[in-house]
Amino acid sequence: MSAEELLKEIKEYIIRNLPGNATITDVQFEGPEVVIYSKNPEIFSNTFIKEIAKVFKKRIAVRPDPSVLTDPETAKDKILEIVPEDAEITDCIFDVNTGEVIIESKKPGLVIGKEGRTLEEIKKAIKWAPKPVRTPPIPSETINAIRATLYRERAEIKEILRKIGRRIHRDVQLKGDVWVRVSFLGGAREVGRTCNYLQTPECRIVIDCGINIAVEGEKAFPHFDTPEFSIEEIDAVVVTHAHLDHCGFVPGLFRYGYDGPVYCSRPTRDLMTLLQKDYLEIAEKEGKIVPYTTKDIKKCVKHTIPIDYGVTTDIAPTVKLTLHNAGHILGSSIVHLHIGDGLFNIAYTGDIKFEASRLLEPAVCQFPRLEALIIESTYGGQEDILPDREKTEKEFLRIVSETIKRKGKVLIPVFGIGRAQELMLVLEEGYNQGIFNAPVYLDGMIWEATAIHTAYPEYLSKSIRDRILHEGDNPFLSEVFKKVKSTNNRRNIIDSDEPCIILTTSGMLTGGPSVEYFKALAGDERNSLIFVGYQAEGTLGRKVQKGWREIPITGKNGKSKVIKVNLEVHTLEGFSGHSDRRQLLKYLRKLKPMPEKILMVHGEASKCVDFASTAHKLFKKETRAPMNLDAVRVR
Amino acid sequence: MSAEELLKEIKEYIIRNLPGNATITDVQFEGPEVVIYSKNPEIFSNTFIKEIAKVFKKRIAVRPDPSVLTDPETAKDKILEIVPEDAEITDCIFDVNTGEVIIESKKPGLVIGKEGRTLEEIKKAIKWAPKPVRTPPIPSETINAIRATLYRERAEIKEILRKIGRRIHRDVQLKGDVWVRVSFLGGAREVGRTCNYLQTPECRIVIDCGINIAVEGEKAFPHFDTPEFSIEEIDAVVVTHAHLDHCGFVPGLFRYGYDGPVYCSRPTRDLMTLLQKDYLEIAEKEGKIVPYTTKDIKKCVKHTIPIDYGVTTDIAPTVKLTLHNAGHILGSSIVHLHIGDGLFNIAYTGDIKFEASRLLEPAVCQFPRLEALIIESTYGGQEDILPDREKTEKEFLRIVSETIKRKGKVLIPVFGIGRAQELMLVLEEGYNQGIFNAPVYLDGMIWEATAIHTAYPEYLSKSIRDRILHEGDNPFLSEVFKKVKSTNNRRNIIDSDEPCIILTTSGMLTGGPSVEYFKALAGDERNSLIFVGYQAEGTLGRKVQKGWREIPITGKNGKSKVIKVNLEVHTLEGFSGHSDRRQLLKYLRKLKPMPEKILMVHGEASKCVDFASTAHKLFKKETRAPMNLDAVRVR
Repeated sequence: MSAEELLKEIKEYIIRNLPGNATITDVQFEGPEVVIYSKNPEIFSNTFIKEIAKVFKKRIAVRPDPSVLTDPETAKDKILEIVPEDAEITDCIFDVNTGEVIIESKKPGLVIGKEGRTLEEIKKAIKWAPKPVRTPPIPSETINAIRATLYRERAEIKEILRKIGRRIHRDVQLKGDVWVRVSFLGGAREVGRTCNYLQTPECRIVIDCGINIAVEGEKAFPHFDTPEFSIEEIDAVVVTHAHLDHCGFVPGLFRYGYDGPVYCSRPTRDLMTLLQKDYLEIAEKEGKIVPYTTKDIKKCVKHTIPIDYGVTTDIAPTVKLTLHNAGHILGSSIVHLHIGDGLFNIAYTGDIKFEASRLLEPAVCQFPRLEALIIESTYGGQEDILPDREKTEKEFLRIVSETIKRKGKVLIPVFGIGRAQELMLVLEEGYNQGIFNAPVYLDGMIWEATAIHTAYPEYLSKSIRDRILHEGDNPFLSEVFKKVKSTNNRRNIIDSDEPCIILTTSGMLTGGPSVEYFKALAGDERNSLIFVGYQAEGTLGRKVQKGWREIPITGKNGKSKVIKVNLEVHTLEGFSGHSDRRQLLKYLRKLKPMPEKILMVHGEASKCVDFASTAHKLFKKETRAPMNLDAVRVR
Repeated sequence: MSAEELLKEIKEYIIRNLPGNATITDVQFEGPEVVIYSKNPEIFSNTFIKEIAKVFKKRIAVRPDPSVLTDPETAKDKILEIVPEDAEITDCIFDVNTGEVIIESKKPGLVIGKEGRTLEEIKKAIKWAPKPVRTPPIPSETINAIRATLYRERAEIKEILRKIGRRIHRDVQLKGDVWVRVSFLGGAREVGRTCNYLQTPECRIVIDCGINIAVEGEKAFPHFDTPEFSIEEIDAVVVTHAHLDHCGFVPGLFRYGYDGPVYCSRPTRDLMTLLQKDYLEIAEKEGKIVPYTTKDIKKCVKHTIPIDYGVTTDIAPTVKLTLHNAGHILGSSIVHLHIGDGLFNIAYTGDIKFEASRLLEPAVCQFPRLEALIIESTYGGQEDILPDREKTEKEFLRIVSETIKRKGKVLIPVFGIGRAQELMLVLEEGYNQGIFNAPVYLDGMIWEATAIHTAYPEYLSKSIRDRILHEGDNPFLSEVFKKVKSTNNRRNIIDSDEPCIILTTSGMLTGGPSVEYFKALAGDERNSLIFVGYQAEGTLGRKVQKGWREIPITGKNGKSKVIKVNLEVHTLEGFSGHSDRRQLLKYLRKLKPMPEKILMVHGEASKCVDFASTAHKLFKKETRAPMNLDAVRVR
């Protein structure tokens, strides 16, 4: 059936089956959804909407026809008039594309009203569908900028969504011997520039498209010279999470002609935008050549279709996507693809943590069906057993406490997203328990990344979520955390005698404020430096970690000078956002159902091979550690 | 350096270094060669030509400028005038593209003359370069038709060669991390529709492109829907041998837009043309849909560049091809590719026999360098041990002799190319030794295929070649062999009481004269039927082999009748043109150098996997049995 015929059938079905007279003004594909515009959307019950979805196997949305919507300014006035002032409304965000208005307030209960009566009144008055949310405790510039873009460019976005919708629902029949294969354009037998290219006779899907920021030249980017890769043919891009080795090149795809959808979780959209912009800024400062500009990042944002965990979505003819929590960083997802009608299922873990952390729940390991799995292998080697999390936290707080006691400062160079927030939760608890009494300064990108975390409490671990939503106790808002607002502010922290903890980027002392702090604090033996992440060969962090006591550095005036390293240097490996070898094997053991094929990627060659060989012996399944440029037929 | 610059440099080099004044009229790329046209080509010594080849690393040919060539008719008269009549010249074939004239005569020694003096005289008189050859003892219609095409279309062919030449010598630099991969479009974990697609960052090469005549529908053809396959990008097609599962689709490539070169041995060119035409004829008779027409076969012939064993040829920028004897059928080749300048070497065996047969030398197993090997696995399974050749021959002659003694007829359904000629040699010897005394009738395609064999004695085993060339004793011309010239002739053979042996196609009783003989001879218990090749499931041959004594058959009038099978049925497996498991493993053991990667193809799935696993254990190298649609990175 063609897309047009399908839309016509849906319309006819509604007219035939809906009790009452729905004034339908339009039925359209918008991205993966079928959107029904009506002058009286209220007569569509949820039961009836679910019925249409089931009959046509499509995601269905019913929206008010734009002609019945009150104009946003008048509508806002109306809302403020209806909702009691005590609710403290801070913002009303109108989404013309969905006919929804997000009402941010300090007390969303008052926006809802008794038995939802206030909401009903708003809806009646302005026709927009009101979505009350709690005002995010820390405002995020990234989220605000994204919302502004989406609002300003709403007409273009609607066009984009319709185009995508028509492409997804084009008439394609799978027949004969249907094959499925995955080509590895990057991130196979290596970490960095992850890019998987899934192909069926009818579809092409890019899953992750990263860059390796640790190297320069063509090896920083995926193998776009892989012969089957064709930017014109891509149906969809799916992003597992916001780290640059998984999403750093996505705006580059738009630069080189892609204009289709990007699917990811909502937090991933925001965090990846933050990191992509940061990547451009740093590269510009260092005079490096970058493969795209902020314009392309904006284009990427406009083409991004956020997907909630667990919601199945058509992303190409015969391909359905479901995202599941991966436990690695906020919004990180396992990608599950269902191909054909019950034909084949494949999942790609992205990066996974199969252990509850303070921040997140462990990765999902049960799927309705699964014939093939692609799994990360960062710690897949025989020796890759990470220290126990509890012991690591104790050791961490012991170092912090002792340093503070001797009036020292603790410098923690850290990656801005994920590990920083995990450590914040450890520090907040330690502070509350009186283990140390000193401020924790957040410098670099950490504050903004934290703001994005506070905007998505539903993506955090149950315990943190409960504290925030039900106990009104947001650990990220603890008084112990102080934002470093300016260079001056930073200077004062360095110069002051006050003991403190500094969480700052970059994590490998390759640039950013962490290097500045290091230079200033290295000479004083009362201070401590704690590495909580991997230090790549060649970085300043690696040198310090190895125990260099004198480090030549080029100063701002271009002259080289020597930094004496007198502070205590610690390395704590137990905070990793990756599963260690035991957790990876446990993940496969717990996996349901067990797939017939397992491909090991995202790790040094020896680790991928080692993990594949062990898993083969343990589980008697076909396992492989493919190489970049291999194309592996999975069906 | 661009192609134009290179030609200019070569020209300047000649002018600077050639003693004497060569009147060079043109320097051109023609296919893989650099051709120098001169009005006085005789002043180029062989030493000097070799010097140019070495300096520029190109194949160099020096040819007379067309303006100095005597026109062919006058030239032929001149030749007949110069050469003594006793030489018995049967044909003069002028190749305008090479400036050569092939002089076929019964006594080529008289064309050469004492110390080559007659040749010199001819050359001086007509300027064409004379190539004396012995008149092939059996005229081949196929070869005559190909020669006629090449002569008639010489202008177009020269244009084709120049176009190919420019493409081969286009300016391409390999830099950075050069990868090499092979995609399997067909023939992986199966037999039939073999098609390997080799890719480097700069080049695309198709090695074999077969069809599976045993199945219908899309599974008969390679997976041209493999995403990296692009007919526009193919640099070269290489064909290992003439069997249809390796070359049956090659004309189809031309049908769908390919217009580049096809490289193979000269016998492969002729035999594949014969088989492709036969395939079209049979398919037409059976009302099957075919993927190309005789026009495409002709196009294929015009684009074929024959290559001698052991001669290294540029076939794409940075790719050099060398063919080596594969021992399987006449002209069958192992394809060796050298990629980059000393960067990487890969060989593909095609089908190999690693044992001397009567017809051919065993497959070549030594290469200057070799990093990866793709090897056939037809008999790669654990059980695939074929009976000893010598014993098989004895058993074969015993059955023949006993059947003849009891006044019976021996029917041997056989594949027209390879096995038929091998059996002819066994029968010829048996006849000479007096083991039987009865005529051997050759029906179907066998006679023509044998004619092509006699045209290329240099491709036969040393013992046969010596008999033909030095002893003037051509076994294929033995009085024991009789060609079946007509349906009437066939009827007479069937009806006569004379005991005889009948070698005829098709080999599995699926059509052709063998079925007609079978119907007529099946009822008489004095007769024998010997199967010497594989009988596929579902064929009449398989039924007879299994021991069916009554076989329902649809007669010419459309009515079904029952054939009683009273003749003796024998199966002899020892004549295979494939290596059995022991020979395959022996081949790997003898292989020099031992490659790091070995890929097993061309066999049922279990056989490929079994062979790969055994080879891995024995030789401690990476082995794999790829699937169709897998792309395997080999470097």
